[in-house]
Amino acid sequence: MVKEEGGYASVRKRIKLVVAYDGTAYCGWQLQPSGITIEEVLNRELSHLLGEDIRVIGASRTDSGVHSLGNVAVFDTSTRIPPEKLCYALNQRLPEDIVAQSSCEVAGDFHPRRCYSEKTYEYRILNRKIPIPTLRKYTYFYYRDLDVAKMQEAASCLVGKHDFKSFCSVRTAVEDTVRTIRFCSAERTPEDVVIIRVTGTGFLYNMVRIIAGTLIQVGIGERSPEDIPRILARRERGAAGPTAPAHGLTMLGIAYGDETDR
Amino acid sequence: MVKEEGGYASVRKRIKLVVAYDGTAYCGWQLQPSGITIEEVLNRELSHLLGEDIRVIGASRTDSGVHSLGNVAVFDTSTRIPPEKLCYALNQRLPEDIVAQSSCEVAGDFHPRRCYSEKTYEYRILNRKIPIPTLRKYTYFYYRDLDVAKMQEAASCLVGKHDFKSFCSVRTAVEDTVRTIRFCSAERTPEDVVIIRVTGTGFLYNMVRIIAGTLIQVGIGERSPEDIPRILARRERGAAGPTAPAHGLTMLGIAYGDETDR
Repeated sequence: MVKEEGGYASVRKRIKLVVAYDGTAYCGWQLQPSGITIEEVLNRELSHLLGEDIRVIGASRTDSGVHSLGNVAVFDTSTRIPPEKLCYALNQRLPEDIVAQSSCEVAGDFHPRRCYSEKTYEYRILNRKIPIPTLRKYTYFYYRDLDVAKMQEAASCLVGKHDFKSFCSVRTAVEDTVRTIRFCSAERTPEDVVIIRVTGTGFLYNMVRIIAGTLIQVGIGERSPEDIPRILARRERGAAGPTAPAHGLTMLGIAYGDETDR
Repeated sequence: MVKEEGGYASVRKRIKLVVAYDGTAYCGWQLQPSGITIEEVLNRELSHLLGEDIRVIGASRTDSGVHSLGNVAVFDTSTRIPPEKLCYALNQRLPEDIVAQSSCEVAGDFHPRRCYSEKTYEYRILNRKIPIPTLRKYTYFYYRDLDVAKMQEAASCLVGKHDFKSFCSVRTAVEDTVRTIRFCSAERTPEDVVIIRVTGTGFLYNMVRIIAGTLIQVGIGERSPEDIPRILARRERGAAGPTAPAHGLTMLGIAYGDETDR
């Protein structure tokens, strides 16, 4: 739709937003009948800002309570606000727990889920005897001592192209469960946060949280790194560990083609 | 006061608690006529837990909104709960934004403010063009680019025994404003958090926040590191920079004599 304004035809363009959020207060990314979501807030504030009915398309439809440093939302607009300035104008309207990190124009056929990308997620576990209040919303507190060397060994068994059906929630109807993980690691920071970092070209529903839950079982010796190939081969959700809690998970960023976002 | 229980006299002992908290929801440490404080919550929950009227003595009376990883509270009790277990029992009752990190018995004359100690504080500044939502409560967002090498140079000028009157809020009546700073540094993390860390044997009211506000002015070139000796020499609050916001400040820990807490 091309709109006439002051005699000039406004050009319709597609904008890519990189969006960071604290997921604590939201029912996840995707529009929901009950409960406020990130997508809903972005649609509302972009529509008010631009005076158009804006509906964003998200790259990662994160669950309730999951955080983000670099999720991606795409939308079409006829605005004359320069694409790179849009994020600043939008941030004036957004609540403090959602902040656009950047905005730029992309090709009209760019689709954040259909274009080739590598997504990176981080799962953070506070692994000490006693919780730390300032980390409670962004790490999962787990007091039993984790053997991170074993977790790292198990993580490396997940790298590659595999059928991840065992690492997919049963609450989904996806048929093709083959995905490629490019990178998967576990490391301990000096502050006793165990960080599981996973990069892949696609993820199934709850996949990173099930990976985290399974690696925790490896970390306490309930499973061994050698179990990972067996879990993958079983191709059933019950073969893997539990789904780790949402608030430990952060979507770090998405790299499309040449560019690298975060 | 010695209490008889089952024929045995309970021994009165002094307990030292190390306390971490997210200061966001509190009006600081110290009891206040209006607004809930850390001290108030500790008194209430310890009194309930131990069945005695407990009044803690705090080491650092942090301001409203300031966080802690290792503040110290001391109290006397006749409880038979082993001193080292007390923190676990207390944590069952405390809200999730206050967590006792450890508990131990100390000498009956130990006083957390009068005994010799070295306190360490950290002031965190998120220094990039756009805020990050998950850091908003624990860092002060400052978008102008900070020259951290200059801030480090200025920080080193604060080390030593000086009259810090210029770095003391006028809302206090303290007479002796000479204090010793053992260590003061500024560094930038890979995530663009500029961390100012200060260790000293004593601090004046708002001293770390005024140091942070002054170092920020150095970081943007409004002042030079060479100004620090001149600011100290002036001995008036107006000579130093503004008081940086409370939510960027965390009390890291206190070391008494031989031991090191955090």
